[in-house]
Amino acid sequence: MMVLITYDVDTTDSAGQKRLRQIAKQCVNYGQRVQKSVFECLLDPEQYVQLRHRLEQIMDPETDSIRFYMLGTNWKKRVDHVGAHSSYDPEGPMII
Amino acid sequence: MMVLITYDVDTTDSAGQKRLRQIAKQCVNYGQRVQKSVFECLLDPEQYVQLRHRLEQIMDPETDSIRFYMLGTNWKKRVDHVGAHSSYDPEGPMII
Repeated sequence: MMVLITYDVDTTDSAGQKRLRQIAKQCVNYGQRVQKSVFECLLDPEQYVQLRHRLEQIMDPETDSIRFYMLGTNWKKRVDHVGAHSSYDPEGPMII
Repeated sequence: MMVLITYDVDTTDSAGQKRLRQIAKQCVNYGQRVQKSVFECLLDPEQYVQLRHRLEQIMDPETDSIRFYMLGTNWKKRVDHVGAHSSYDPEGPMII
């Protein structure tokens, strides 16, 4: 299933920037970064539990928040994009 | 329908901060800000077209991006949250 992960952290602080880099590093194993703090990840239920656990270990629960949106399997019809950075298809062919 | 709106802008720049404030001002007419650049808005199709048009007028399409995720009507089951700022229910009763 496609899970949208949004991460809220104050990146004016270097520790916050580090946490965001670490969060991104975990998320891109399963999908792609579509905005600075937004990740679209293809996860099965077990992967979701694992990734969520890792992210909870990285985040500062006092100051940061993470939201998970289950977009389901029909997610492509649910997304629209305007502006910089065109949309992408993480399920499409990989171009090397 | 519930539409999740994520906005990517460089807020280290004062013009970017201003655009984010303007985007937030438009979005909170229809829902709530759940993270710094993430908004959950309850919109009918006409409102969606109107809001999207306004946001496109505010954003800088060369540098910013906006993504719209249609979470549908069964959206409450699709959202999970960890960390700071607890979740909320924009369809719930308003407490004054």
